[in-house]
Amino acid sequence: MAKIKCVISYDGTNFSGLQIQSRERTIQGELEKALAKIHKGVYVKVHPSGRTDKGVHAKAQAVHFESDYNLLPGEWKRALNAMLPPDIHVNKTEEVSPSFHARFDVMEKEYRYYILNESEPDVFKHYYVYQYPHTLDIVKMQEAGIYFEGTHDFTTFSSAKASVKGSKVRTLLEVSCHRDGSCIEFVLRGHGFLYNMVRIIVGSLLEVGRDKLTPEEIPYLFEQKDRQMAGDTVPPQGLYLWNVRYEETENSQ
Amino acid sequence: MAKIKCVISYDGTNFSGLQIQSRERTIQGELEKALAKIHKGVYVKVHPSGRTDKGVHAKAQAVHFESDYNLLPGEWKRALNAMLPPDIHVNKTEEVSPSFHARFDVMEKEYRYYILNESEPDVFKHYYVYQYPHTLDIVKMQEAGIYFEGTHDFTTFSSAKASVKGSKVRTLLEVSCHRDGSCIEFVLRGHGFLYNMVRIIVGSLLEVGRDKLTPEEIPYLFEQKDRQMAGDTVPPQGLYLWNVRYEETENSQ
Repeated sequence: MAKIKCVISYDGTNFSGLQIQSRERTIQGELEKALAKIHKGVYVKVHPSGRTDKGVHAKAQAVHFESDYNLLPGEWKRALNAMLPPDIHVNKTEEVSPSFHARFDVMEKEYRYYILNESEPDVFKHYYVYQYPHTLDIVKMQEAGIYFEGTHDFTTFSSAKASVKGSKVRTLLEVSCHRDGSCIEFVLRGHGFLYNMVRIIVGSLLEVGRDKLTPEEIPYLFEQKDRQMAGDTVPPQGLYLWNVRYEETENSQ
Repeated sequence: MAKIKCVISYDGTNFSGLQIQSRERTIQGELEKALAKIHKGVYVKVHPSGRTDKGVHAKAQAVHFESDYNLLPGEWKRALNAMLPPDIHVNKTEEVSPSFHARFDVMEKEYRYYILNESEPDVFKHYYVYQYPHTLDIVKMQEAGIYFEGTHDFTTFSSAKASVKGSKVRTLLEVSCHRDGSCIEFVLRGHGFLYNMVRIIVGSLLEVGRDKLTPEEIPYLFEQKDRQMAGDTVPPQGLYLWNVRYEETENSQ
């Protein structure tokens, strides 16, 4: 059996998220359908680096699968793209060691979040950014971002509905934002993320940007371990899983 | 009764075209639903400048409706946008004379068509451009465009399925194209267009760009009055109704 790692991009607009669900159009579902066609009807399970929610996009998601077919890595890319719908694209395929696992071997994930900071909505950007009309103090948001970097218990900044029983301690390497015209880009990099963590951190940075919260209050919010204290969960369409890094590959892009 | 003209934009991706159809999500259907909400359940008919197909977008489509409600034009814009889904947006509303008709009074329409001339597809552009991997000779396409300008019988360059019984003579004011990096933009302006005419002209220009047809052959194709002689109908997602001009308004943008 060969183990194949794929780097894929997808437009999450018309998917009910990554994870397979009966009667819903999902990224995993479309990938497994394409693999079954290639394997003459035999089911091949797809293992992603992690889930993404309905409406969330990916520039470079990573998945792996196993196959007893002997295709060259470039042939896997061509074969899959020929079978996949146009809103999923395989950017790269490579054979990896039998011990590789797309989820358990993740070293670092990068997410980006995009805000269109304008009063008039743009229908052509609706599925790809969060249109936010209020004036924002970017410098204060940047100051607040630094308080999220490092190792913390992220209970306050993750979904209270999360089923994770274990530790909510995670390490973030970067939480930054910058403005380019009316577009605001957030970059969040870390070893791992809890459910809704990116969207709640961005929502909290927006509270700082509107002077409803000060950067200096962030450590107090961490201490409270109370989801209610943080900002709203911003909508999914501004969120992109931007990159997933592994030890054995230089750069998964 | 006041007659209100609206300039609207829409992302055609998740609509089954403009014209109302039972059980399908359409632009006219959503506009009439919003107007019925504003008018406490009373049906208000929407008259567009013309139809657009499933997947076709609009930057500045024009529609009119009549109402016995006395709102200021700016209030109509706010009321409609509050009721409309995020993939339709009212850019402008104004009261027009009782004799105005969004379809019959059109002086000029402008369409644009966008091609992504790259070998690798971009999932985030799939619903908004036509990804076309072949090398194109833009200068020859520009030369060919000039043969479409002026008054011609467009039978060769319109859908054979069109139900139009009358004349197929139309006047085009501009058929141009230019390249900006890997994006190719086509601009077509005219007094009126037949069904699929923009998409068949663009498809024919692509044949010229690939040296399958010469610019000098275009007059011969017009003479044949045979749809089979022209290029393919390019897909809807690259097409934008860009502007609709009327005598009584300076610029409908």
